[in-house]
Formats: sequence, structure tokens, C-alpha cells
Amino acid sequence: MSTIPKIVILGAGYGGILTAQRLQKELNYNEADVTLVNRHDYHYFTTHLHMPAAGTDSIDHSRVSISRLIDEFKIDLVKSNVQEIRLSDKKVVLQDGTLSYDYLIIALGGEPESFGIPGLSDYAMTIRSINSVRMIRQHIEYQFAMFKADESRTDRLNFVVGGAGFSGVEFVAELADRIPKLCKEYDVDPNMVNVYNIEAAPTILPGFDPDLVEYAMEVLRKKGVQFKIGTAIKECTPSGIVLATGEEIKSATVVWTGGIRGNRLVEAAGFETARGRVKVDEYLRAPGHERVFIIGDNSLMFNPEGRPYPPTAQIAMQQGVVCAQNVVAAIRGKELKKFIFSHKGTVASLGKGEAIASAFGKKYTGWVAAQLKKVVDLRYLLTIGGIPLVLRKGRFF
Amino acid sequence: MSTIPKIVILGAGYGGILTAQRLQKELNYNEADVTLVNRHDYHYFTTHLHMPAAGTDSIDHSRVSISRLIDEFKIDLVKSNVQEIRLSDKKVVLQDGTLSYDYLIIALGGEPESFGIPGLSDYAMTIRSINSVRMIRQHIEYQFAMFKADESRTDRLNFVVGGAGFSGVEFVAELADRIPKLCKEYDVDPNMVNVYNIEAAPTILPGFDPDLVEYAMEVLRKKGVQFKIGTAIKECTPSGIVLATGEEIKSATVVWTGGIRGNRLVEAAGFETARGRVKVDEYLRAPGHERVFIIGDNSLMFNPEGRPYPPTAQIAMQQGVVCAQNVVAAIRGKELKKFIFSHKGTVASLGKGEAIASAFGKKYTGWVAAQLKKVVDLRYLLTIGGIPLVLRKGRFF
Repeated sequence: MSTIPKIVILGAGYGGILTAQRLQKELNYNEADVTLVNRHDYHYFTTHLHMPAAGTDSIDHSRVSISRLIDEFKIDLVKSNVQEIRLSDKKVVLQDGTLSYDYLIIALGGEPESFGIPGLSDYAMTIRSINSVRMIRQHIEYQFAMFKADESRTDRLNFVVGGAGFSGVEFVAELADRIPKLCKEYDVDPNMVNVYNIEAAPTILPGFDPDLVEYAMEVLRKKGVQFKIGTAIKECTPSGIVLATGEEIKSATVVWTGGIRGNRLVEAAGFETARGRVKVDEYLRAPGHERVFIIGDNSLMFNPEGRPYPPTAQIAMQQGVVCAQNVVAAIRGKELKKFIFSHKGTVASLGKGEAIASAFGKKYTGWVAAQLKKVVDLRYLLTIGGIPLVLRKGRFF
Repeated sequence: MSTIPKIVILGAGYGGILTAQRLQKELNYNEADVTLVNRHDYHYFTTHLHMPAAGTDSIDHSRVSISRLIDEFKIDLVKSNVQEIRLSDKKVVLQDGTLSYDYLIIALGGEPESFGIPGLSDYAMTIRSINSVRMIRQHIEYQFAMFKADESRTDRLNFVVGGAGFSGVEFVAELADRIPKLCKEYDVDPNMVNVYNIEAAPTILPGFDPDLVEYAMEVLRKKGVQFKIGTAIKECTPSGIVLATGEEIKSATVVWTGGIRGNRLVEAAGFETARGRVKVDEYLRAPGHERVFIIGDNSLMFNPEGRPYPPTAQIAMQQGVVCAQNVVAAIRGKELKKFIFSHKGTVASLGKGEAIASAFGKKYTGWVAAQLKKVVDLRYLLTIGGIPLVLRKGRFF
């Protein structure tokens, strides 16, 4: 019987890929068996999905084959759905079999949070995967085609984006960029199209600098976005949404971006969770499980002021690096490293040529911010795939 | 009161455009007022629609603005829907007004014929206009996107084309060319996709040379088309079709190409019709109406053997030319010209690089036939729009 420890990584998102790549680099030959489990054979860039969802960029700029990111001689790749995490047995049940582990890294990513709003999970679409994104893109274009077959259905030209956080704002900006092109392709009067962005909070992009928020709203309004801020969605129906004010917006397309919660598999595993997220220790370990690490959207960590870090790609990536180091340290009986989040700044894209950014203690808008956004994207490609990936997937213009 | 005769042309399809262009050329200054009425401000190439319908070519290769084809100083263009032809009043009622005429040319085009098959007009799509074609294209791609969201719905990957005449075969060929690309784009196993072509007649492409028919079937089978020949569709339902044999094919996409009948407006005008078509005299005039000409899909003419000519672009164009000559002759009190159809041959496209053709008393297949098809298309562009249109709309490769 092999005494080599088995490391299983669940999920090849930002956290999982970084963990796998670092393990591959740090581990010596035969020091551990590493298996990476993912539902798809590709890794996708969640922070980029707003573009293909709106149809302003191709899917292929948003994903890369995992086999290009990891060395399959060093890491086994299993393409399967995780169905259950059995902590007591140290096993993971997959759709096509079972895996035992000594060390487990849970990097499964989150799920859309509907906050109990009736109808939302039935009638709204969410930007959460390549499949969902292709669906949204096709759904939107199909509405234009269907409208031309029956012009009484003006609700087909109403598009509702629920939530004005990062994803909501970035998506609505791309959608506003795409609408004029769709109008031209389908001979539709652009004045007939309505794009709504609905947000229950008193502001869009909560947490962002107020000046930048104001700038963003101005840019988006000019692109034709109609905001309803401080307005909760009461219900989502087959024919649209009802607001808390009682107002009804008829729409054949509701895209919900209002929030992320932890993965239900994590809850089901028996961890104590808050909105599906597990409060991990400073070494990224699940409470009471020294050899189970949780990173990314399923982990809950607090900043020095005691507020939870929002789930972002940035934190997931940093966690992936530290997680790999800690797994290696644990195997070698060395001391583990504390995770300290280093905030590199934030950029929100506002469509073609427009963005807002806060970084290096400064604020940026417009073209400069849009360039920063590109640099962030390119740096990520460089990190996970080096120059070849930058050249194959990068958007330079 | 003006004594200049008013000529009204209804429809800017193959027949209507050719009539308008010839009138524009033949008429002297102030010899007549010509008005061309069309639902859209563009003319489209019906024989080309199978490509954009399948998504293998852009819409813009299938239409051209009418203002590029006629001289608006010489011909008035009215964009409106015809609602009624009032023969006794010599008036045409449009959605936005009324037009009087002295000479009327009815070139409205036909309508899909469902032969009374239940459900067909409700649940099947038809290739009959730019709007319908964009709808079919988007509907097809949407099925792939939706399938990836719920892979139990394998009916979304079944595509049924009803009718294996010209339009049916040309469309199914393009669809078969498009499927592999859609499979790639949506990560769908091509073996899960089924493309059916159903035909009640004992052969596809009835009237075509049997050797060529056999060749066509072989080409299409290799592309993955499954034929059900000599098999009538008994019913079309929201979930697919039921065949006369009782077999059910579950499908979210049924495209009906099984036949064309005359326009219902022509029937409603009081003409005696057979399947909506009016038996015109040898000068293309409606019976009992010396100044009403009917051309294209709404006219019924017989070949020397007493069989009706099928409604094609070729005959409509030739009718348009003779119709214009006869209207001018009538205005000038000259003798009218008999219409004699000159058959120039037939080409059926079988997708990329493949076709069958019978022309100059010979049969052609494969690459040569595909080139002939392109020549036919380019010649048409040359006829209606000269070199500039050929350069803008032509597909050379």
C-alpha cells in the first residue's frame, strides 16, 4: 500500500487552478499524488463572463483547456461532478466514482443567492458558467428575432439586470454596448429597447468610491441604462418582475447578479456555514479538520475591521497560493503560513473603452481605467499560463 | 386631373423588382406614374435564404435596399403592407392608406402551404422572409444553449425539416454543414444530434434527374442527414411530429418547406384560384381584368404538356420582364407579347462545395455544380444591380 499522501482538489476555478499549479511546482517527485476534479475539462475566467454573456466577446476568450495549465504527468485530472463530500470517510463521491483523500482542498465556487425572492431561481438566468453564458447570449438575441415575428410583444425588448454589484454593472454595460448592434442586425428601433438595472441597496457598486460610482452611473446612463436604485425586486414571474414599489416590468429576459452564496455541497458535508460559506482558520483550514482546506467563494474570512471579505477572484487566487504552500508544509511537518489578503485594487469595466478603478491609493476613470482592466486580465493569463496563454487568449484592444 | 396612367406594382420580390426595373427603363418621361409597394424597404433573395436560416451565411448577403435597385426619381416606393385589393374600385388598401391604379401588377409572392396537416402552422417554422430566417437561425442555436442547461432534453438536438423539394434539401444541407460548428461551440457530442428530412413523395427533389437525386442523397447522408422518404407527416405538435406510420419524432425545431400556395390576398380579391394561384392568360393578365397582371407565385401557367410550371425565381423574373413590356405596350396601344418560359436549367445546392445541376442538356455534380450555383447567384445580382451589387453582395468563394 502506497504511503504517498493523496491530495484532492475540488474545482478548477481561480482558487483550484492556482493551488494545483503551485502544488505542481512545490512538490518533489513522488512526494504526493495530486488529483484535480472539475466538472469541465476547461478553466474559465468568471470575471470575464459578462462579455460573452452579452455577446460582446467570444466564449473562447473566457476559457482555456485545463490540460494547458497543468502538467498531466504530475497531476491527475478527473472530469466529473462532485456529488458528496464524506468527511468522516475522507472520500469524495463523484458522478463516475469515488476518490479517497488525505488532504482535501475545497475550491468548488459559489452559487447564485436569490435571497428567497419568489420566482427568481425559476425565471431568472444567472452568469455563472460557460453554459449559462452561452444561454444568456442566445436568449437575448432570440428575443430580437422573436420580436420581429410578433411586434406586439414589446416585452421581448425589455432587459432586466437584477443587482448592481460588480457583475451586474459590468454585464449591463456590455449589454448596453451590444443593443445597438442587435437593433441594426434585426431592424429594430433602438428607442423601443429598455435596459434596466435594479438594485435594492441605496447605491450601485457598494463599497466603491462615491465619485467613481457617480462616474459609472453617468457613463451607463449615457449608454441607455435605466437605473432603479434602492428598489428591491419583490417577485420574478414568467412575464417579468414585480418591484417592492408594486411596479411591474414586463420582460422576457431577467438576469440575476444579486449575490453569491457558498456551494450547497459544502453545507451538505456538515460544515457549519453562514450563507453557505465556512469560517476557515488563518491557515485556510476548515474548523476541526486539519487536512481540509477551503478557499474561494466557500471560505469566509474577516478583514482586520471584522468585516467579511467579499468573494472575489483576487482573494481566491491568493488563497490558492497559500493553500498549496500549507498543504506542502503539512506533508513535510513544517509550520503553516497565515493567509493575509493583500488588496491590489479594484477595476470595474463599463463596456468598450470605459472603466473605473481604484488602485495604488488613486482613482482612475475612462480610457486609463479600461487599460488597467486589460492589464489585470493579461496579468492573470500570464500567471496561470505564461506568455503563450497571453498570446492565445489575451484581448489587447 | 392627370391623364398619366398609374401603374402600381405590389411586391418587390423577383417578379416585382424585374417589372419595376424594366418599366423604369422602357417608359418615357411622364408616360406613366409607377408606384412599387413593398412590406420592407429591402428586396431579398428567396433562393438564398436557406443559408442564413441555417446560419451558414449572413443576412446581408441575402438582401439589398430597394433604393439601390430602382431610381426613386422615376418610381415611387411605398413601404407598407397590402391589406386588400379592390378590383371593382381599382384601388389597393394599404396599412397606411390607399392607392388607385390604372394598371396593377400583383407580384406579392406566395405563402407556405400546410396541406391541412394539423399543428403545422402553429408549431413549425417556415423559410419565407428575412424575419423568419433570423428567427430560425436563432432558434436553432438557442436549442444548443438550452440543451447545455438541461441535458435531459435531447429533443433539443433533433432537427426536423419537413419537405424535400428544393428549399427543404438546400436548407437541410446547410443545416448539416452548420451542426458540427454548433457542436464545437457548445461542447455537444455530434452523435447526439439528429437531422431528419421528411418527405411524403417517393423521392427527394421530385422532377430532378434520378441519377442526380441519388447523388444528392448520398452527399446528404454523408453529412449526417437522415431521410424518411414516402413518409407523410400526420401531425405537428408542441413536442415534435407524428408520422403517418405512427412514429413520433421528438423535436424542438420543425422547419416546414413542403410547399407554396398563392397569397390569400389574391383569393380575397375575388379571383378564381387553384391553391391560391390564378390561371393567367398568355399575356400574364388576370382573367376578365385586362389591366391586372399577375406574376410569380400567384400566377398559374401550364407548360406545353399541360402541367403547371412550379413557382420559381426563374419564371418570376422572366414574367417580370414580359409583364413590364406588356404594360408599356398596353399604354401605347401596341400589341402585347406572349409569355413563353425559357428553362435555363436547375441547380440545387447541397451545402459547402456540393451541388447538383441540370443545364444545357447535361448533368453536373460536386464542385462544378457548386460553381454553377454561384454563377446563377452572381448573374442575378448583375441583372438587378450591375457590377456594384455583385461586388457588394456576391459570394465568390
